[in-house]
Amino acid sequence: MLDKVKIEELIKEQGDIVRQLKAAKESKEKVAEEVAKLLDLKAQLSNEEQATNGPQKFTLKTPKGTRDYSPQQMVIRQKVLDKVVSVFKRHGAESIDTPIFELKEVLTGKYGEDSKLIYDLKDQGGEILSLRYDLTVPFARYLAMNKITNIKRYHIAKVYRRDNPSITRGRYREFYQCDFDIAGAYDPMIPDAECVKVIQEILDSLDMGSYTIKLNHRLLLDGMFEACGVPSSKFRSICSAVDKLDKSPWEEVKKEMIDEKGLSEEVADRIGTYVRLNGKSELVEQLLKDEKLSKNKSAVEGLEAMKLVLKYCDFYETSSNILFDLSLARGLDYYTGIIYEAVLLGDTTNGEDVSVGSIAGGGRYDNLVGMFDPKKKQVPCVGVSIGIERIFSVMEAKLATIKEKVRTTEIEVYVASAQKNLFEERMKLCNELWKNGFKVEHSYKRNPKLLAQLQHCEDQGIPLALILGESEIQKGVVKMRDVISRVETEVERSKVIEELQKRVAQFNNVP
Amino acid sequence: MLDKVKIEELIKEQGDIVRQLKAAKESKEKVAEEVAKLLDLKAQLSNEEQATNGPQKFTLKTPKGTRDYSPQQMVIRQKVLDKVVSVFKRHGAESIDTPIFELKEVLTGKYGEDSKLIYDLKDQGGEILSLRYDLTVPFARYLAMNKITNIKRYHIAKVYRRDNPSITRGRYREFYQCDFDIAGAYDPMIPDAECVKVIQEILDSLDMGSYTIKLNHRLLLDGMFEACGVPSSKFRSICSAVDKLDKSPWEEVKKEMIDEKGLSEEVADRIGTYVRLNGKSELVEQLLKDEKLSKNKSAVEGLEAMKLVLKYCDFYETSSNILFDLSLARGLDYYTGIIYEAVLLGDTTNGEDVSVGSIAGGGRYDNLVGMFDPKKKQVPCVGVSIGIERIFSVMEAKLATIKEKVRTTEIEVYVASAQKNLFEERMKLCNELWKNGFKVEHSYKRNPKLLAQLQHCEDQGIPLALILGESEIQKGVVKMRDVISRVETEVERSKVIEELQKRVAQFNNVP
Repeated sequence: MLDKVKIEELIKEQGDIVRQLKAAKESKEKVAEEVAKLLDLKAQLSNEEQATNGPQKFTLKTPKGTRDYSPQQMVIRQKVLDKVVSVFKRHGAESIDTPIFELKEVLTGKYGEDSKLIYDLKDQGGEILSLRYDLTVPFARYLAMNKITNIKRYHIAKVYRRDNPSITRGRYREFYQCDFDIAGAYDPMIPDAECVKVIQEILDSLDMGSYTIKLNHRLLLDGMFEACGVPSSKFRSICSAVDKLDKSPWEEVKKEMIDEKGLSEEVADRIGTYVRLNGKSELVEQLLKDEKLSKNKSAVEGLEAMKLVLKYCDFYETSSNILFDLSLARGLDYYTGIIYEAVLLGDTTNGEDVSVGSIAGGGRYDNLVGMFDPKKKQVPCVGVSIGIERIFSVMEAKLATIKEKVRTTEIEVYVASAQKNLFEERMKLCNELWKNGFKVEHSYKRNPKLLAQLQHCEDQGIPLALILGESEIQKGVVKMRDVISRVETEVERSKVIEELQKRVAQFNNVP
Repeated sequence: MLDKVKIEELIKEQGDIVRQLKAAKESKEKVAEEVAKLLDLKAQLSNEEQATNGPQKFTLKTPKGTRDYSPQQMVIRQKVLDKVVSVFKRHGAESIDTPIFELKEVLTGKYGEDSKLIYDLKDQGGEILSLRYDLTVPFARYLAMNKITNIKRYHIAKVYRRDNPSITRGRYREFYQCDFDIAGAYDPMIPDAECVKVIQEILDSLDMGSYTIKLNHRLLLDGMFEACGVPSSKFRSICSAVDKLDKSPWEEVKKEMIDEKGLSEEVADRIGTYVRLNGKSELVEQLLKDEKLSKNKSAVEGLEAMKLVLKYCDFYETSSNILFDLSLARGLDYYTGIIYEAVLLGDTTNGEDVSVGSIAGGGRYDNLVGMFDPKKKQVPCVGVSIGIERIFSVMEAKLATIKEKVRTTEIEVYVASAQKNLFEERMKLCNELWKNGFKVEHSYKRNPKLLAQLQHCEDQGIPLALILGESEIQKGVVKMRDVISRVETEVERSKVIEELQKRVAQFNNVP
């Protein structure tokens, strides 16, 4: 750790940077990024001070790469999750939950290079634990531990990666994953096609605009690499080079293959002719006749699988959203069959589809469960993970654009009092309404001002107010106010429940 | 860490213990406890082996004190949470979420002795982090950080305590908390009475049987201690001695006060006369006239507050569930006003109420937010935490008793085929049904046996099956089977959706 004086210097410098950016009216994202650095430095300073001086004031923040969800954000999050879950349930998925941490050895050797991003817990005596990195490995552990050979399950929960996230681009160290997986030994490509269908239903139900689901097959990739002359020891590393094609141009990827991964230019060029291909079933047919691929067992197997899944996608009417794309590689090592990834297409008004990034992905992983089974018994699995954090961000941005106010409570009726000393009546009326299942609140002050109470209703979007007044109490009535129209009507005290039931039903029927 | 040979010895010994218990047909709980110890030892051995030999087979388990939730358990958990949330929403609560970990310094100095139970993350460079211990401290941090001075929020999330939990008694190291809090400067006891009301509504809606909500006040406790002659430095430690009265007899607690906490017998006896008192508002009146208490400012203040809250509880009709109980102390240091705790009453057939333990609790904490604010600005808070894990356990036990089978999916219609080669028709029909919003599944085998398909429907409690057959396809009809009655009717292919809508609505209307 840096010493205090050094950190104080850095804080001063960083403060200047932030001030300059603000003065120059730079973009919000840019300012936010530099402010985040500043807050980190302040936290470091506070840690340092605490270490030397004992407990003290500290910077009030959430840990790096994490955030709180405000009530507004929670409402959006819940709406998105409800829609996603309803699709999972429509396809018969059960749900499970696993602990937030696992024995470290459960995670060891599953994520390749990314293992360095795993959060470890401090050794406080006892077991050595790590926070989960995804939901797939705990799912495989769960299946092996409980000897489950078939299940269709969804799991929505937070996972943890010590990445250097760009928060302004919606990436975090603590984030939700939202997984749907089908485990079991079944006939080829049937569960696989359903996973693609699930992606389609979710993106459509969330109204995410136009998108493409790219498909490819690991066996085809391997076969293609082999046919192009890549030694098998380099399949995975060439695979991750190909994976970069969604962000980098071919020339750059080719350079990496030659300079860093040690391929000859000739071999790289051969790969290049393939990975730039994409299409539908006619491309499968074309490649099945390709001189090199047609002689490669793995490639043919992959192509036959693609042919089958494309047929099933026809039956499931997902074909129009699908693209067989030889450049799709997916980062994770554990995939063994079909892989897919959905990308949102940006604004198409200028005639060009601009990809705004991956929003769902997955594939088949037939060997992961066996890594946990003492007898190496395999349970074939295929699944999909929805990029729910990106979807939250898109939704938040949408709502910000249309400036729609999101209600964060569901209160239907506000009980107000027009004069002082009606506190007891207010409480009794609230109690009666709660008993009848209405969502109700009233002021926590004994004698609040009527205007303040009505203002609260308007601010919070509460549709109805019941106003207690002395003259009304004497007449045996209550004033019922429609908050939007401000129309007030008198209702007999004994008929309040009945009348409210009618009114609330009306409000709930308005979409 | 012990060395390998030593651990192997211990495993052998522990294995013998387990075998003996099983042979002696000891209770499940006892056996489970010893088996847990055995599994821990095996995990230690595996860690040890891995350290010396590199990756190897290891014991497949979740970390100590944690568990997976099976689909059955998830269904129960979701039902309970839905009911709890609906009460929170009825009272106008918004929801928030915070990260699973906090800067360690956020938690420091908030939990007294229990701080040793906090899970720390390993220092991997950067900030020093700990898993959250409860939801109250992160809530206070959230308020101070966002300068929020009033909010009514609920938060349902997991918290972490490195306790030595008795899993057989439903206690875990990872467990859910379910909190409802009202923050803001309001008139006395109004939000407090609503928290008590919320407990009542939740326990009633969950049908938890009879229960008592005990109430007390920290100011009354302090005043009583002072009046009895306890030095103020010992208030909190005597408070935690009193807190044990729900589990230990007075004589034991008295002994602790004298031997461990250094009170004289006379002072302890004076406390004893008070803490054995409980009652309703008549007890408040009696104590207001008590020679010692009536002269103590703090005690009188506490009693006046009790008087007010009991009146409000009358208005909210919670009085019949309430007991003003001077032995209620609550463990946490941060309470500053009213405190409460709901206990379930066990079987009362033998004329005696047996407490089966605390199921909800909370109180007022006016100084916690100020601990995070740079200017020590206070935000008064009062809240309640529902002991949701205990409720899950009670519910699971109930369902086990009545042997009700819990459905873990919501599938409404199963699409089956009577002969081979109807795979395409099956997929197309499923697709049509999904499009129309039905919850549908079919076999992932191309040519499954009809009996196996129908058996699946019965096992899973799927109410309806559509059976595709060649002769029906030629006739332009589909067979619709009511799975429970096994009655089959033919429906025109073009009217399947319409007919299903009717049938499914019927099933969904049955409670």
